[in-house]
Amino acid sequence: MKFKLAAALAFTSALATPALADDAALREEAKGLFEVIPMQAPQLADSNAITRDKVDLGAMLFFDPRMSKSGVFSCQSCHNIGLGGVDGLETSVGHGWQQGPRNAPTMLNAVFNIAQFWDGRAPDLAAQAKGPVQAGVEMNNTPDNLVATVKSMPGYVSAFASAFPGEADPISFDNFALAVEAFEATLITPNSKFDQFLMGNDGALSADEKAGLQLFMDTGCASCHNGINIGGNGYYPFGVVETPGAEILPEGDTGRFKVTATADDEYVFRAGPLRNIALTAPYFHSGKVWDLKEAVAVMANSQLGAELDDTQIDQITAFLTALTGEQPQVVHPTLPVRTAATPKPAPMN
Amino acid sequence: MKFKLAAALAFTSALATPALADDAALREEAKGLFEVIPMQAPQLADSNAITRDKVDLGAMLFFDPRMSKSGVFSCQSCHNIGLGGVDGLETSVGHGWQQGPRNAPTMLNAVFNIAQFWDGRAPDLAAQAKGPVQAGVEMNNTPDNLVATVKSMPGYVSAFASAFPGEADPISFDNFALAVEAFEATLITPNSKFDQFLMGNDGALSADEKAGLQLFMDTGCASCHNGINIGGNGYYPFGVVETPGAEILPEGDTGRFKVTATADDEYVFRAGPLRNIALTAPYFHSGKVWDLKEAVAVMANSQLGAELDDTQIDQITAFLTALTGEQPQVVHPTLPVRTAATPKPAPMN
Repeated sequence: MKFKLAAALAFTSALATPALADDAALREEAKGLFEVIPMQAPQLADSNAITRDKVDLGAMLFFDPRMSKSGVFSCQSCHNIGLGGVDGLETSVGHGWQQGPRNAPTMLNAVFNIAQFWDGRAPDLAAQAKGPVQAGVEMNNTPDNLVATVKSMPGYVSAFASAFPGEADPISFDNFALAVEAFEATLITPNSKFDQFLMGNDGALSADEKAGLQLFMDTGCASCHNGINIGGNGYYPFGVVETPGAEILPEGDTGRFKVTATADDEYVFRAGPLRNIALTAPYFHSGKVWDLKEAVAVMANSQLGAELDDTQIDQITAFLTALTGEQPQVVHPTLPVRTAATPKPAPMN
Repeated sequence: MKFKLAAALAFTSALATPALADDAALREEAKGLFEVIPMQAPQLADSNAITRDKVDLGAMLFFDPRMSKSGVFSCQSCHNIGLGGVDGLETSVGHGWQQGPRNAPTMLNAVFNIAQFWDGRAPDLAAQAKGPVQAGVEMNNTPDNLVATVKSMPGYVSAFASAFPGEADPISFDNFALAVEAFEATLITPNSKFDQFLMGNDGALSADEKAGLQLFMDTGCASCHNGINIGGNGYYPFGVVETPGAEILPEGDTGRFKVTATADDEYVFRAGPLRNIALTAPYFHSGKVWDLKEAVAVMANSQLGAELDDTQIDQITAFLTALTGEQPQVVHPTLPVRTAATPKPAPMN
């Protein structure tokens, strides 16, 4: 799954300012590297059927702060559906006001990523969903307490029964994760200006955005950031050409090395998916860069060794802004009522 | 505005178990004390016109965690639209993981209350909205920083211009509060079983719920808990007949005395509005009682000195459960995109 960066970079063209290709040629080249976001959720690789009942249950679980030990945090707290799927913090604030180690990635279109988390340690959204609920610095819950919480409420008991028909014991931590995955799989953002251009609308992108797209492909950005999510589908070292300062790339976070324990994976991260990137500041796993244009410049220097002028950086930034799709419109679910058997929230321990 | 409790109690009948009146008589008696929740938001007493643009803006502000200094908390954090308008905690957790002094009251139907907060210190929802954003233990923001945050985002600039047409400088802390008030005024919960009974449907309440309604009126509960919100419209001492233990009534919180500095107001609180009370555990300003039936028993003892048997308490509890209305269905708003001028969240200071 891991691309060889040297090879990937080898086929990128020289860094001279490219002439803007005509629209048809630009579209053909782009269609060789990128894909249109579909209007509907895809089928899931883990055979988790996306049913209306399961999505509705997943939405309840996603928005329910009682999934955390404190009763304060839900999935939505750090993956805010109104904020492009992130929390807008450098790194998230969790249980006991602790700060997490990495910037919260968006769940929008995350179903299309090769794997989840900055280091790809979860193969899919179901595996991902089990992480934050248990992390001591995030929701600080246990699977047992989560299952006890859900089982205590008749509203959840019937919702799990409907979402997992025929199962003898539908309420489980695994099914919690599958329901959240099904809901999140519906959170896709079609019809960005870029998608409209790919689908054939020449006027969907401005001249600067088209120039940015051409530069994005010609200078090598698209070597790592390609596919349906324009990233999120391979692993690469942060600092291919020049290692960024510790402010942006903290030394203590060795990235995918912590997952694979392979020396090659030191400071290797999943390439950031760039869909809706204009909505999800601050940037990088450290969350230290707040300005998208600055992030583009950091990437050009550290990953490509490219000397881009200000206009070129502006054009690439303009292209990235054209990746903002239609945001999901979700009715906030009415959550089941607690009972005497529901574990009480415990924010202070 | 303050009812005289002694006088109010004087017209309650003796505490013998009442015979269940026939439905028409029960409805007539109830209509003398309570009102049906309307289907639509009422006109606001402060002449704040409820327009679609203002409600949409208010929804954005209500759900936006960037209204807090940390970027972590929004109005929704403690007044969760999926949880009956509360957070389900004894007292809310706020900035720096501090716990607030009192249980978060619901904003659902709060537009019908005589005033806001447990001690009524805010005359309306607009005044209320200005409190938590500034409270150091809650959102810890300042009006200046909030206005700067809003002004930095074109999405808010246009939304304020639409919501407050013709104003030279539409973005102000006052208008923030008016927009939140307009949104919250729409958060009403019509068509509870009790409302359906009041409107003429004999079958909307069960026999136990009808018996509970009769007891609620006959034993004196309705002396303080009456009107459209079945409470929320007058101030009364907690512990009329017998002072509850410090566990339920903490000695340090003297209630409305802190607002009026009048000795008569020591341990006086606004009577809790009982709409959707089955959804909003834990109970009382201290949030120390988690079970609705136990809360009814505490009230009977402390406020009425009534010796109610277990069946009677069950019946009153059943009646209270029939006060759950149709919950608001609100699409989570897509929030405006930050800019370089937007103040950064500051969770750690």
